[in-house]
Amino acid sequence: MIQAKGYAAQTAETPLAPWQFERRDLGAHDVQIEILYCGVCHTDIHLTRNEWFPGIFPMVPGHEIVGRISNVGLHVKKFSIGHLGGVGVMVDSCRECEDCKRGQEQFCTVSPVQTYNNIGKDGLPAYGGYSNTIVVNEDFVHHISEKLDLAAVAPLLCAGITTYSPLKRWKAGKGDKLAVVGLGGLGHMGVKFGVAFGADVTVISTSPHKEAAARELCAHHFLLSKDEEQMRAATRSFDFILDTVANDHDINPYLNTLKTNGIYINVGMPAKPWEVSSFSLATGNKVIAGSGAGGLPETQEMLDFCAEHNIVSDIELIDIKDIQTAYNRMLKGDVKYRFVIDMKTL
Amino acid sequence: MIQAKGYAAQTAETPLAPWQFERRDLGAHDVQIEILYCGVCHTDIHLTRNEWFPGIFPMVPGHEIVGRISNVGLHVKKFSIGHLGGVGVMVDSCRECEDCKRGQEQFCTVSPVQTYNNIGKDGLPAYGGYSNTIVVNEDFVHHISEKLDLAAVAPLLCAGITTYSPLKRWKAGKGDKLAVVGLGGLGHMGVKFGVAFGADVTVISTSPHKEAAARELCAHHFLLSKDEEQMRAATRSFDFILDTVANDHDINPYLNTLKTNGIYINVGMPAKPWEVSSFSLATGNKVIAGSGAGGLPETQEMLDFCAEHNIVSDIELIDIKDIQTAYNRMLKGDVKYRFVIDMKTL
Repeated sequence: MIQAKGYAAQTAETPLAPWQFERRDLGAHDVQIEILYCGVCHTDIHLTRNEWFPGIFPMVPGHEIVGRISNVGLHVKKFSIGHLGGVGVMVDSCRECEDCKRGQEQFCTVSPVQTYNNIGKDGLPAYGGYSNTIVVNEDFVHHISEKLDLAAVAPLLCAGITTYSPLKRWKAGKGDKLAVVGLGGLGHMGVKFGVAFGADVTVISTSPHKEAAARELCAHHFLLSKDEEQMRAATRSFDFILDTVANDHDINPYLNTLKTNGIYINVGMPAKPWEVSSFSLATGNKVIAGSGAGGLPETQEMLDFCAEHNIVSDIELIDIKDIQTAYNRMLKGDVKYRFVIDMKTL
Repeated sequence: MIQAKGYAAQTAETPLAPWQFERRDLGAHDVQIEILYCGVCHTDIHLTRNEWFPGIFPMVPGHEIVGRISNVGLHVKKFSIGHLGGVGVMVDSCRECEDCKRGQEQFCTVSPVQTYNNIGKDGLPAYGGYSNTIVVNEDFVHHISEKLDLAAVAPLLCAGITTYSPLKRWKAGKGDKLAVVGLGGLGHMGVKFGVAFGADVTVISTSPHKEAAARELCAHHFLLSKDEEQMRAATRSFDFILDTVANDHDINPYLNTLKTNGIYINVGMPAKPWEVSSFSLATGNKVIAGSGAGGLPETQEMLDFCAEHNIVSDIELIDIKDIQTAYNRMLKGDVKYRFVIDMKTL
């Protein structure tokens, strides 16, 4: 077994703390990654605190992993020692079901393995990226360009693909009016991709002070959602809405701002169910679209797109000892826009 | 003014009864239609009883109209006297907004005119098809083939286009598994179009006795929604769901039966808002799509498709004096599948 260290929650009630644990020995198709950076996703908070469902403890969170390959299994073809590698929200799947064959491994129900809070095919708990090293099947490791700031690349593995995937599916681009609701980890990536795809991008936020931040990200317009007059004036004006807000909120005011045939995409995953009237969708053939992360081919496509267009996340690099402070600040929305752990500090 | 007769609700509390009224004189671009048949839509019940919102009374309902052109205005080019003509849910719009230019006149918000329970551009109340004659701008009158049973064509103008339009938009066809929820006026048309488009069609119903009816309509499978085991077995099995049920119901069990990237289309328009969890859509990139009727070009396309493929509605032809009995039977779901008024009985 490979000795590893990281930060873990021992229970849903205890804060993260240093922990020693074991990873499986390298299989023929595995690579070992020396983790350089790991992004901090809101999901890490939800899962370590059992906010969605009971978790598997001890839990080492983290699914926005960038590092350097330090060892390769006998039959590994995709990587050599010294290459960069990235790991997102999953580390294995069945590869044979309809979803896997289509490249949507994130929806595999046969034998999916999430990056953490899951049991791997090796029978061991899957531990995530708040750690010095990880062993992953090469298929689930992505090539990372040497061109970009590696710490700022880490959040692309979750926040990046989660916003890139639905905008690509629905073909949001040139000539389209795109509204991004919420300007956090997901939202700021949504703005960057929207702008890169050529859309006319409006940031919608409850906070007037987000306007300057939105403009810095090259958003074209800003709409204050608390201002009823502004919202009324925006009736039937967007082709697409990308709602990135994790807190419970009424989505009906946003549906009103969609044009005919408009698509409301939700990636914020609020806990409380929405109340939606059939009439608000029928009038204008409107659509509510869910979207969950992205598959392996699309994640690599996104990373390549980012390298080509010089897109990374805006981050605050932190010492792993400050992870609880980071969680507390995230809960207040006080981060521009993603915390990334510098694994040298472990 | 043109003298007309029909059946009207004088108030939301009174039953339909014979009524004499006036239509506008023929404008240069108007045609006058001698109405032969008018389908009876569930909307007629909702509107004459103020179930959705306060209506304009006296109200002559009916928006599934087939008849013969009896007179044409000076500049009419599309029709000659003696031609067949069909009118659906709308009789005018602005023709200049984005929606009208795209051929989605049903969503015009500038100056839309519904076929009844609306005020026309002439300033007069728009009276619907439970009547001997109607005056309509030629653009809003569709060509009807002489090949089909005219009484059975009438419901195509609403129930037909309402189911045809979303199945076309979402490209439900060969190789796709389509579930049609509810087997009434809309549902039976959904089955007919699904089969004609080459999809593998399953009817989902709460009534076991609908199975034989579904098979008669050439549906390939039947699923009893009250049977939890059948529903569980259908998890992740459909590419498309066309939900035609007008009564309030929980849509979450149906969302579970969608495959990854699956589309749930609602045309039933239940009054109570749905409760939908963001998680149920994100897992599998699922979509809830609203759909309202269809525009002018698509309605003509649908009528032409029906003529070519010999598709009409299954109907019960009734005497207009029996309209209240028909309404009562519709409320019990006791009609196979659409009542059509024989206007000779007026």
